[in-house]
Amino acid sequence: MSAYRALERRFVRLHHLDNALGILDWDYQTTMPEGAASWRGETLAVLTGLRHEILTDPAVSDDLAAAEDREAEALDPWQQANLREMRRLWSHAAAVPGDLVTANARAVADAEMVWRKARAENDFTAMLVPLSTVLGLQRQIGEAKAARFSVALYDALLDEYEPAGRSARIDALFDELAAFLPDLTERVMARQAAGPPVLPFDGPFPIEAQRQVGQAIMAAIGFDFTRGRLDVSPHPFCGGAAHDVRVTTRYDDTDFAKSLMGVLHETGHAMYELHLPPDWLAQPVGAARGLALHESQSLTVEMQAGRSREFLTYLAPRLREAFGGDGAAWQVDNLYRFYTRVERGLIRVDADEVTYPAHVILRYRLERALLAGDLALADLPGAWADGMADLVGAVPPDDRSGCLQDIHWPGGAWGYFPTYTLGAMAGAQLFDAACRAEPDLLPGLARGDFAPLIGWLQTNVHAKGSLHSTDGILVAATGRPLGTAAYKAHLQRRYLAEG
Amino acid sequence: MSAYRALERRFVRLHHLDNALGILDWDYQTTMPEGAASWRGETLAVLTGLRHEILTDPAVSDDLAAAEDREAEALDPWQQANLREMRRLWSHAAAVPGDLVTANARAVADAEMVWRKARAENDFTAMLVPLSTVLGLQRQIGEAKAARFSVALYDALLDEYEPAGRSARIDALFDELAAFLPDLTERVMARQAAGPPVLPFDGPFPIEAQRQVGQAIMAAIGFDFTRGRLDVSPHPFCGGAAHDVRVTTRYDDTDFAKSLMGVLHETGHAMYELHLPPDWLAQPVGAARGLALHESQSLTVEMQAGRSREFLTYLAPRLREAFGGDGAAWQVDNLYRFYTRVERGLIRVDADEVTYPAHVILRYRLERALLAGDLALADLPGAWADGMADLVGAVPPDDRSGCLQDIHWPGGAWGYFPTYTLGAMAGAQLFDAACRAEPDLLPGLARGDFAPLIGWLQTNVHAKGSLHSTDGILVAATGRPLGTAAYKAHLQRRYLAEG
Repeated sequence: MSAYRALERRFVRLHHLDNALGILDWDYQTTMPEGAASWRGETLAVLTGLRHEILTDPAVSDDLAAAEDREAEALDPWQQANLREMRRLWSHAAAVPGDLVTANARAVADAEMVWRKARAENDFTAMLVPLSTVLGLQRQIGEAKAARFSVALYDALLDEYEPAGRSARIDALFDELAAFLPDLTERVMARQAAGPPVLPFDGPFPIEAQRQVGQAIMAAIGFDFTRGRLDVSPHPFCGGAAHDVRVTTRYDDTDFAKSLMGVLHETGHAMYELHLPPDWLAQPVGAARGLALHESQSLTVEMQAGRSREFLTYLAPRLREAFGGDGAAWQVDNLYRFYTRVERGLIRVDADEVTYPAHVILRYRLERALLAGDLALADLPGAWADGMADLVGAVPPDDRSGCLQDIHWPGGAWGYFPTYTLGAMAGAQLFDAACRAEPDLLPGLARGDFAPLIGWLQTNVHAKGSLHSTDGILVAATGRPLGTAAYKAHLQRRYLAEG
Repeated sequence: MSAYRALERRFVRLHHLDNALGILDWDYQTTMPEGAASWRGETLAVLTGLRHEILTDPAVSDDLAAAEDREAEALDPWQQANLREMRRLWSHAAAVPGDLVTANARAVADAEMVWRKARAENDFTAMLVPLSTVLGLQRQIGEAKAARFSVALYDALLDEYEPAGRSARIDALFDELAAFLPDLTERVMARQAAGPPVLPFDGPFPIEAQRQVGQAIMAAIGFDFTRGRLDVSPHPFCGGAAHDVRVTTRYDDTDFAKSLMGVLHETGHAMYELHLPPDWLAQPVGAARGLALHESQSLTVEMQAGRSREFLTYLAPRLREAFGGDGAAWQVDNLYRFYTRVERGLIRVDADEVTYPAHVILRYRLERALLAGDLALADLPGAWADGMADLVGAVPPDDRSGCLQDIHWPGGAWGYFPTYTLGAMAGAQLFDAACRAEPDLLPGLARGDFAPLIGWLQTNVHAKGSLHSTDGILVAATGRPLGTAAYKAHLQRRYLAEG
C-alpha cells in the first residue's frame, strides 16, 4: 500500500472518531441526564486522547514525508489537497506535547466551571487565577505552534480556527471597519429614531407552534430531515456527524423572534455540512474550509437572506397563521423594522448586524494584548469599558455584562473571535455575488424559495470542501479576496437606504 | 507501575469506549435520522475495532501473566476478581482471529438485513444461505474458543453470555421444566377457562398518559432520573452508559398493558446497572455478572413483583385515574386475571410466564442440534413445528410465526437463548428469598413501595458486580445454587392456588 493510501485509511478512522465525538457532544448538550456529566467528560477525554494518539503516531510523520516526497506528483488535485490538509492537521496535533494538551484540557474544564459561577455572581476576581492559568497554557501552545509554523504566536492559535489566517491582514480589515462603524451606527440610529417605532408582537407564542415554523423554514431552506434533526439545547449550535447534522435552538414562549433567527443561523451552518463533497466526506479535504467561511454560511442565511425584505414578506403571513397574530405589528413593514433594529447593546450574542462587529473587534484587540503581555488580566475590566465606549458607545455597568459574558477565553478558544466578523464580511461578499449570478434569488426568497441561493452556495462554497484556501474560494466565487467593501455596501444599503 | 495497575488503566479506556458505544447505540435506536444508518454503522465498526485492538494488544497478555504470577497474592479480593475478569474478557477477544471477527460482523449485518425481509415475506428459503453462513462462522468462533477454554463448542459460545454456564447443567434444568410445564399448562388453562373471563379495557389510551404512568412506576421502583432516561424505540431495551442508564418502550394507544410491563421489565435491568459497585464501575469486576442474573432482575420486577396481586392492587386505581377507566374491567381482580392469563401462543415475546420457558427450551435444543450438525438448516421448520407441538401445544401455520420470528440466529447470538429461562428461575429463587428476608416486601408493593425488594436486590445481587460467579451470588443470597424448585413453586402458587 502506498503511504498516501495508508494515510487515507488512518484518516477514515479519525473521521469516525470525530463522528462519535460529535454525536456524544450533541447528546451531552441536549439529552444527557445531569448526573452523568463528569462521567461523560471522562468518556469524551478518552476518545479525544485516542484521536490524538492515532494522529500523532510516528507512522503518520513517516507516511506524510514519503507521500510528499515520492507520491505527490501522481496524485490528482483533490488527493494533493487532501495530503496538504493531513499535514496541517498533523502539524497542529504534533506541535503540542501531550502533557500540555492534558494540562490545557484540565485548566479549561476548571476555568469553565468557575466562569459559570463567576458570571452569575458578577465576580471577576474569582476568574483571575483560573483564567490566568488558561492564558499561560494558551501562550505555551501558541509558542509551540509558532515555532513549528514560523508565524507569530497569535497567528499560530488563529490558524486552528482559520487556516492561513494572519493578524496583519485582520488588523487592516478591522481597522477599516472600526473607522466606518461608529459613524454608521450614529446615522442609522438617528434615522430609526425619526422613523416609525417597532410595534410589539402580542404573545404568548406556544413552543410547538414555534417548532413547526422553524421546521417549515428549515425545509424551505432545503434541510434534509432524513440526514439531520432539529432539537433543543440551552446554547444553540449545529453539530452531530457526517450524514447526521443536528441543529438546536432554545424556545421562549414570550419571544418567537430570537429562536426563529437562531434556527436560520444554525441551518446556514448545517447546509454547509450537508453539501460537503460526498466522495471526500471521511477525509480532511472534505471538511469545511474554516470558521470564517462557516460563519459566512450561517450569516448569509440568517442576516443576508433571512432579514431581507423579500424573505420577511414570505415569513409575515406564516407567522400570523402560526401565532394567530393580526394588526399592524404583524405586517411585513413592522417585521422588517423589528429585525433590522440597531441598538448600542452590551451583549455580543444579542447584538444587531451593525454593532456586532464592534463587539468582535474589541475582543480581538483585547485577546491579542493579553497574549502579548501588553495587557494584564487584572486590567481587563477597565480596558473592556474603554473599548466599549470607543467602539460601541455603551459602557457595561458590571463585569457580568462586560468581560465575563463569553465562554471563549475560559474555554481556551483564543484566536476564535475574529472569525465571526470575517464571516460576516465573507457572507456579504458571497451574497452579493450570488444575487448577481442568480437574478431570481431575491424574488425567490419572497416565495420562500431558497434554491437559487443555496444552489449557488453549494456549487461555489460547500462542494469545494477544503480543496482551496478561504481566499481561493472567495476569489473563484466573487472575483475578489476577502474585503470590507461588500459588507459596508450591504450595511449602508439596508440601514441607510431601504426602510 | 505494576502490571495490574497498567491493566486497570487500560480497562478504564475500554470502559469509556463501551460507554461511547452504548450511547451511540441508544441514539441509533431512538434518535438517529434514517439516512445516517450506514454511516453510523461504520462509526460503530471503527470504535469496535479500536476496542478489539486495545484489548488484544500484546502488552495485555504480558501484563496478565505478570500480574497473575507475581502480584496476585498482594491484591485484595476485588482486585483478584478483577484480574480474573480481565483474563476472561481477554480470552474471549484473543481466541478469535481478527479476520473471523470481521467476517462474522459482515455476515451478521447481511443476514439481519435479509431476515427483516424474509420474515415480512414469510420466506424461509431466502434465509438458508445467509443463515448457513452465520452458523458456519459461529461454529468456527465456537471451535476457536472451545480449544482455548477446553470446553465443548456450545459451552464456549454460551460462556460469552453466561460466564461459566455449561450445557450439561442446562440440559438437566430444562429437562425438569420440560417434564413439568405441559401438565401445568393444561391444568392452568382448564382452571382459567372455568373461571371468570378477562374483561377488555376501553381505550384509547393516550400515549402521554401512558408515558406518565410508566415514569411514575419507574420512580416508585427507585429509578434515578438524574442518571437515566425513559425514551421510545421500536424494540424496547435498557442501554446507555455508566451513570446514564436509558430505558425504552414503545407505545400503542389501543393497548397500555404491554408497554407498561415492558417499562417494568427494562427498569429491572436498569436498577442492576444503576446499583453496580460504584468504586468498580470502570473495571470488569464492576460489570453485571451475566445475562441470567440480568434477566433475573428484569423478571423479578416485571413478573414476580409486577404481576403480584399486591402490586396490581396499587396499580389499578392509578390506571383508572390515568385513563379515565371505570367499571369491573378496571378492578384489581380483572387486572390480575388479565396479567396472569395463560395461552398456547406462537410468539415468544408475547408469551406468558407459564409458556415462555417452553419457547426457550425449544430454541436451546434446536440451536444445539444445528451447531452440532445433528439438524440441517433446511429441516429447521419441521423440527420447529414438532417442538412447538410437543412443548407448547401449538403449531405455527407459517415460518413467520415460527422459526423466522427471532433476530438472535441471524444476529449471531448463538448460546444466548437459555439465559432467558435461567433468568426466570433465578428471579423466582431471589424473590422467594427476598420475601423471607423482608416481611414488608409484599405489603410494601401494595403501597407502591419497592424499597424492601430493591434494597435487598441491591445488597445481595447488584452491589456484587462480578465479584463472584452466578452460583456464588445465588448461594450467598438464597442458600442454594440455581435450581427449578422456587420457579416451579411460584408458578404452581400463582396459577393453581391464587386467583
